[in-house]
Amino acid sequence: MAPDPPAALAGAGLLRPLLADTGIDAGLSDAALLQAMLDVERELAGVLAELGVVPSAAAEAIAAACRAGRYDIRALGQAGVIDGNPVPALVRELTAAVPAEARPWVHHGATSQDILDTALMLLARAAGAKTAAAVGAAADTCADLARTHRGTLMPARTLGQQALPTTFGLKAAGWMSCLDAAGARLQQVLDEVLAVQLGGAVGTLAGLGEAGIAAVSGLASRLELSEPALAWHTDRQRILELAGALAAVVAATGKVALDVELLAQTEVGEVTLGAGGGSSAMPHKRNPVPAILIRAAAVRAPGLLATLHAAAAQEHERAAGGWHAEWDVLRELLSLAGGAAARLGALLPDLHVDAARMRANLDSTGGLPLSEAVAARLAPSLGRADAHEVVRRCARLSVESGQAFRTVLVDDEQVRAVLSEHDVDEALDPARWLGATNALIDRALTDHLHRAA
Amino acid sequence: MAPDPPAALAGAGLLRPLLADTGIDAGLSDAALLQAMLDVERELAGVLAELGVVPSAAAEAIAAACRAGRYDIRALGQAGVIDGNPVPALVRELTAAVPAEARPWVHHGATSQDILDTALMLLARAAGAKTAAAVGAAADTCADLARTHRGTLMPARTLGQQALPTTFGLKAAGWMSCLDAAGARLQQVLDEVLAVQLGGAVGTLAGLGEAGIAAVSGLASRLELSEPALAWHTDRQRILELAGALAAVVAATGKVALDVELLAQTEVGEVTLGAGGGSSAMPHKRNPVPAILIRAAAVRAPGLLATLHAAAAQEHERAAGGWHAEWDVLRELLSLAGGAAARLGALLPDLHVDAARMRANLDSTGGLPLSEAVAARLAPSLGRADAHEVVRRCARLSVESGQAFRTVLVDDEQVRAVLSEHDVDEALDPARWLGATNALIDRALTDHLHRAA
Amino acid sequence: MAPDPPAALAGAGLLRPLLADTGIDAGLSDAALLQAMLDVERELAGVLAELGVVPSAAAEAIAAACRAGRYDIRALGQAGVIDGNPVPALVRELTAAVPAEARPWVHHGATSQDILDTALMLLARAAGAKTAAAVGAAADTCADLARTHRGTLMPARTLGQQALPTTFGLKAAGWMSCLDAAGARLQQVLDEVLAVQLGGAVGTLAGLGEAGIAAVSGLASRLELSEPALAWHTDRQRILELAGALAAVVAATGKVALDVELLAQTEVGEVTLGAGGGSSAMPHKRNPVPAILIRAAAVRAPGLLATLHAAAAQEHERAAGGWHAEWDVLRELLSLAGGAAARLGALLPDLHVDAARMRANLDSTGGLPLSEAVAARLAPSLGRADAHEVVRRCARLSVESGQAFRTVLVDDEQVRAVLSEHDVDEALDPARWLGATNALIDRALTDHLHRAA
Amino acid sequence: MAPDPPAALAGAGLLRPLLADTGIDAGLSDAALLQAMLDVERELAGVLAELGVVPSAAAEAIAAACRAGRYDIRALGQAGVIDGNPVPALVRELTAAVPAEARPWVHHGATSQDILDTALMLLARAAGAKTAAAVGAAADTCADLARTHRGTLMPARTLGQQALPTTFGLKAAGWMSCLDAAGARLQQVLDEVLAVQLGGAVGTLAGLGEAGIAAVSGLASRLELSEPALAWHTDRQRILELAGALAAVVAATGKVALDVELLAQTEVGEVTLGAGGGSSAMPHKRNPVPAILIRAAAVRAPGLLATLHAAAAQEHERAAGGWHAEWDVLRELLSLAGGAAARLGALLPDLHVDAARMRANLDSTGGLPLSEAVAARLAPSLGRADAHEVVRRCARLSVESGQAFRTVLVDDEQVRAVLSEHDVDEALDPARWLGATNALIDRALTDHLHRAA
Repeated sequence: MAPDPPAALAGAGLLRPLLADTGIDAGLSDAALLQAMLDVERELAGVLAELGVVPSAAAEAIAAACRAGRYDIRALGQAGVIDGNPVPALVRELTAAVPAEARPWVHHGATSQDILDTALMLLARAAGAKTAAAVGAAADTCADLARTHRGTLMPARTLGQQALPTTFGLKAAGWMSCLDAAGARLQQVLDEVLAVQLGGAVGTLAGLGEAGIAAVSGLASRLELSEPALAWHTDRQRILELAGALAAVVAATGKVALDVELLAQTEVGEVTLGAGGGSSAMPHKRNPVPAILIRAAAVRAPGLLATLHAAAAQEHERAAGGWHAEWDVLRELLSLAGGAAARLGALLPDLHVDAARMRANLDSTGGLPLSEAVAARLAPSLGRADAHEVVRRCARLSVESGQAFRTVLVDDEQVRAVLSEHDVDEALDPARWLGATNALIDRALTDHLHRAA
Repeated sequence: MAPDPPAALAGAGLLRPLLADTGIDAGLSDAALLQAMLDVERELAGVLAELGVVPSAAAEAIAAACRAGRYDIRALGQAGVIDGNPVPALVRELTAAVPAEARPWVHHGATSQDILDTALMLLARAAGAKTAAAVGAAADTCADLARTHRGTLMPARTLGQQALPTTFGLKAAGWMSCLDAAGARLQQVLDEVLAVQLGGAVGTLAGLGEAGIAAVSGLASRLELSEPALAWHTDRQRILELAGALAAVVAATGKVALDVELLAQTEVGEVTLGAGGGSSAMPHKRNPVPAILIRAAAVRAPGLLATLHAAAAQEHERAAGGWHAEWDVLRELLSLAGGAAARLGALLPDLHVDAARMRANLDSTGGLPLSEAVAARLAPSLGRADAHEVVRRCARLSVESGQAFRTVLVDDEQVRAVLSEHDVDEALDPARWLGATNALIDRALTDHLHRAA
Repeated sequence: MAPDPPAALAGAGLLRPLLADTGIDAGLSDAALLQAMLDVERELAGVLAELGVVPSAAAEAIAAACRAGRYDIRALGQAGVIDGNPVPALVRELTAAVPAEARPWVHHGATSQDILDTALMLLARAAGAKTAAAVGAAADTCADLARTHRGTLMPARTLGQQALPTTFGLKAAGWMSCLDAAGARLQQVLDEVLAVQLGGAVGTLAGLGEAGIAAVSGLASRLELSEPALAWHTDRQRILELAGALAAVVAATGKVALDVELLAQTEVGEVTLGAGGGSSAMPHKRNPVPAILIRAAAVRAPGLLATLHAAAAQEHERAAGGWHAEWDVLRELLSLAGGAAARLGALLPDLHVDAARMRANLDSTGGLPLSEAVAARLAPSLGRADAHEVVRRCARLSVESGQAFRTVLVDDEQVRAVLSEHDVDEALDPARWLGATNALIDRALTDHLHRAA
Repeated sequence: MAPDPPAALAGAGLLRPLLADTGIDAGLSDAALLQAMLDVERELAGVLAELGVVPSAAAEAIAAACRAGRYDIRALGQAGVIDGNPVPALVRELTAAVPAEARPWVHHGATSQDILDTALMLLARAAGAKTAAAVGAAADTCADLARTHRGTLMPARTLGQQALPTTFGLKAAGWMSCLDAAGARLQQVLDEVLAVQLGGAVGTLAGLGEAGIAAVSGLASRLELSEPALAWHTDRQRILELAGALAAVVAATGKVALDVELLAQTEVGEVTLGAGGGSSAMPHKRNPVPAILIRAAAVRAPGLLATLHAAAAQEHERAAGGWHAEWDVLRELLSLAGGAAARLGALLPDLHVDAARMRANLDSTGGLPLSEAVAARLAPSLGRADAHEVVRRCARLSVESGQAFRTVLVDDEQVRAVLSEHDVDEALDPARWLGATNALIDRALTDHLHRAA
């Protein structure tokens, strides 16, 4: 038996910092997959023994041989050249590993795709559960941030420009809400969509005689997967739902990571990540490395998702290429989702929020983000249209002259006719122009608690 | 006011045969979108009047001006160069179209993205409902085919090769099941995920004062869209769920179309499409044109889905490009899903099934697809291993010599020692080697009825 | 005859601000495509007349009827439902439009795909030429910026963090070099890869008898397209090369636009765009709208490119879906590349560079981006390892304490032992730590001039 | 030092039958990459010694330590969590591995991306060369097939339907031409586009003082890569060109594999693959396994290509995620292209062409694919329009009645009035309706020889 590298999918992981310490790749490795395939073979024999199709002794002998350590993964992979997938070689080896009287019952009634599809569902369930948990943890941390920073004023930015004031609490609530939606959908797919595959060569269960449907039920029940009405050998809707949920998780983590990276820019400086990101050549740098690795995952997930959709064009009863295209792509998508979620779960508690810098940035233009608030105070006297025109003029002057917006306002005759200096200061107080921010945070937190419950 | 072409999204539709007579593109045209944007402006004014924010007369004046025919679509599009999207220009035009006293209340409290996102949701709901209905109709026709052809024997094919017998009924049940899954998921998204967008410039509803959250509720209720906890300006999970469901519909239709196209090949000849597909140069051809147009849609949908996922990397409170990338891509995905579903809905009732050709194809190799059945009959006497070996030898001889499999079997000494000629004929009867086919069809039909109910 | 909207591909262009005033969409509209198809029919008849296959009078009659305005584009599009593409209907209409004696010679020897593929190549050549010119213009402007701002100091940024000093001249040279590479590759494809398509129904030119190959040569020559050795009905390498070059143009423009958008952020403020980008609600905003529209194009191009690659799986002599999937995707990619290049060509001359802000940003951390330069000055005395360690310690202290790096250095005992205050100031002078910046700019400019020549 | 698995990229290769015995994955493994990174470090030190920057003894010490076997790949990968990529950890280890006096000169003047980008170019060159050779070999085999089967008649198929006659020689020439185009473009990219990367932290070569540009030249020359005018840290045009060429190779192989798979269908039976593809459960099957594995690669390549284009949106002087997204995607694309080309190179010589079956399929409809030829013979008497109408009528009757087309023609009064039975037979002789087939084959072969030379 050949030793299998612990994280086989990733080679030695030289270029997979996203996954490095997450344990995700190990659960998706060739070794893990081989064991999952053997688990399916074992439970298939078991359920058929229960149904009286396979002798109990044969099922026990098969079960005893279903340990991945007994098989040479690399040789099984090589054999795929002949068969197109590793299952036939595994069945040959497994058959050779059991006593003669058990041999005819190895893989009884199944086709290669039954074993590999079901094994991949087992891997998906395990990796998906870890991912959903990590998404949940990240959302919980966002909830904490939303509570803690409910009143932490900062500039909201649109199209890269400071727009109006917001709070970091509302921003964190937005992250939480996005993560919650992605996590809930993933959990739904894990619970409802992942199904056992058992159809025999062409989906008729011909090799199982009368026992076919009971075998499907029994195998589903033993493996705790859903029981499909039909074999889904070339109906890949389940794969598409799973892939969509995983890619959406990556997108959600990518949105948060993008914000973090932008907030961490030297000139913005509103957050820093606690550890890491040093540069040997540039000791002052604080690279937001985890955020960057998550962003990289977000660049990759769409292509993997598209590939699984393209692969869904599967011919007749079993496909001539589409199925074969899915395997590594699905594993990689599971890896990226798991890695991105784990990385984000670790990043967020480590996020240092610089409230003073946020406030300083918000104030840096002398109040321009409050122009709307000024207009609202002018409107009762000037009418809304004129109020806007006055503010527009003052804002333009501020931007073009470099004078603080407050200064321009206070100096402006039309403004002065309506608002005192005190009124202007109130208008320019960002805490007074937050709209429904607090109520929105509360709504989002309520939803979060509701989802977690 | 400029005349708007009826199917503006599609130009004149010269290269859109998929959509030609479906009405889908009209519902997604620039004209339809403009009206939807105006619907949102109208209802926003209406709800704010209800809440006492906007004078009733102003809301009525605005409503009166919210008719797409009053505006020059092309000019609005041109203005997007300055503003980045057509809403500001529309607001300017709409403002100009109402009496002076109503002007300040046009677009009150909203941002461009509020209007455009919500309008796109309205278009998505309408197109999506048509699509779901067409998917349902296609699945119903598949159910009819499954019932009618429950016993129509045909070769099941794996990797392009005849494998075992199946029935066209089971194949149709598989199509139905695939379509049902896609349709159910789309319906779920339409019902639960499409939401109103209203957050104001940065998602705080700052311009609406105390009325903000009530305005969100009221607008959602008037437009019959879900009410989100927060503005989703840069949380695009809803778009991703919608896009995933649409792409999965296209994939489901593409799977059926692929099978149809393959079954219609000259050398297979098991189905023909009733009408069309003639070739002027080649009058004998019966091109399965609708199936081919659906397959083309299935080639395109994955790229559109991937693009929407890539676009979900949206910065801060409103994005610098990601949002702008979504618009046409989402419309095109809605078009493709609607067109593919409509085309399939029309194709299936028109499908001519040639049961005799199916049977002839199944018999063309003299029984090779029944080799497993022969082995099963030999096993009690020879043991399963030897039984398989004997069958393998005979099958190989048949393939290599060109002799019918039945002939080889009947001539084989080891076979003859166990099976009479009658036994061989029974083993080679495809109707006796269908496994759970009928039960599977019944399960799938039950699920179908359950879903439709 | 129905009036065709001027920019038919785009509908009324409501959601296409990228293209609004570029003229690109008009050249790719259904009307333009129809005329191109008619151009191919006309030249085909012409070359066959030259070869003595078609009577001259017939060719002249056909030429006279090959004016797009005579045909109802919408009706041609509708007919695609039956035929799968608009050419058969066009041939019917064109046949009806000529005298009886010319009718047999309409479309003689050609298949639908010959006409449509060649017409799309004509459109691609025209749009591609505009695109290449716009890319060239943008690169020229970058060359001007590189010269003008050769010495304009600014912070170079890596992973979002200020790293070392650079000049805006080198940054602009990098943009130029990227655009030049993309433009050169596009020009190469336009010159060498775009080819006429003429193969008849199955690529054998069977309908043209002896004249087949001469007809291919003649048609290529008349249309100024390359002459392929074989029909490329299902060999789509040419489409892939074209698509790759177009997508790479979009990527190049997207890189520049991304930098512009980031430099224009409120907190960075190193560039502004001259016009536009105002926000009615937020008069102080200067949204970098053109950059954002280009970024949106860059989000979309990869999916279009992937679709064309997926579509290249084309069966036998003519494809069952793959070809049909190409049409609109290729047109859209041509649009995006043309629009992005035109938009960038307009943006760059309008770019206001704030050299003072660049310098202020570079100085904002009191010299941290020069830490490497300090270490280099310490190394001769302390050894390189110790020098780095000292600098690392000082940088960390600066970051953590908020003290300017210069202050920390001047206060540090180990530094003071080696470097005078003057030495520190020299080390912290960014103009002295630019490495090969000027030589690099010169190399890039030389390459640029060489390419343009 | 940890043992590195031989094919680290692939894990144990359990799901990579495409690559199994090709050696491609080994050349792209983590171990190979590590050695390539060390090769770059070694040559960098070497060139700097040559330039008098680094002491010769230091360069020699560094060279001695640049052996992959000395380093723990897994540990380097783990360290990427902190640094974002494995190079800083490698530099630390390499520094520790050399004598103290050499330590300051390890990685002198370089940044992580310099090392990793250049190392990936070295891997790309090696894998790409193998790929181009395999493509060339496959094209050569196609050339042999084109010569051998110049006259082997078979049905050409369009939209899945028999259309006109062609020869297998022309089909093979089409494959050859497609492969030649892809191979030539790949070779062009390998020769002209792959470049060394050396820019230092921000592309200014600041750490190298006066020696910067000479170092770039020298390193390029030592590694036999192109010398770029500027560092291309965030100008990814080179990556896009490489990726496009690789994906186009996969598409070319995918086109051939698709045809092979379709020709191998049970009901078509025109080709078989020599070995493999047995099914344990279905001994009669001859699954065209290599063709299917290539088709699977063709499903995957578009998503990888799109991802590299999406990743090209890279910020400022070094990217915050885009670069990190490239690594594994590029390696996987190199793998797929190499595997698909190798697999096709092995498949084609093993292809068994059944000329008799081709002819039988062509004749199976009693001559319908020759309807155009019949019309051509009727035209001089009936006029082209009436000739077509007569043929259309006869073809329709043949299809609807099931009578052979020849029978219908011979029985038709209008036909009989013009053509004798002998004339009909001549018209229905496919060898007389091949148009320019032979000349086309010759053109393509000439081009092939020209390219190979």
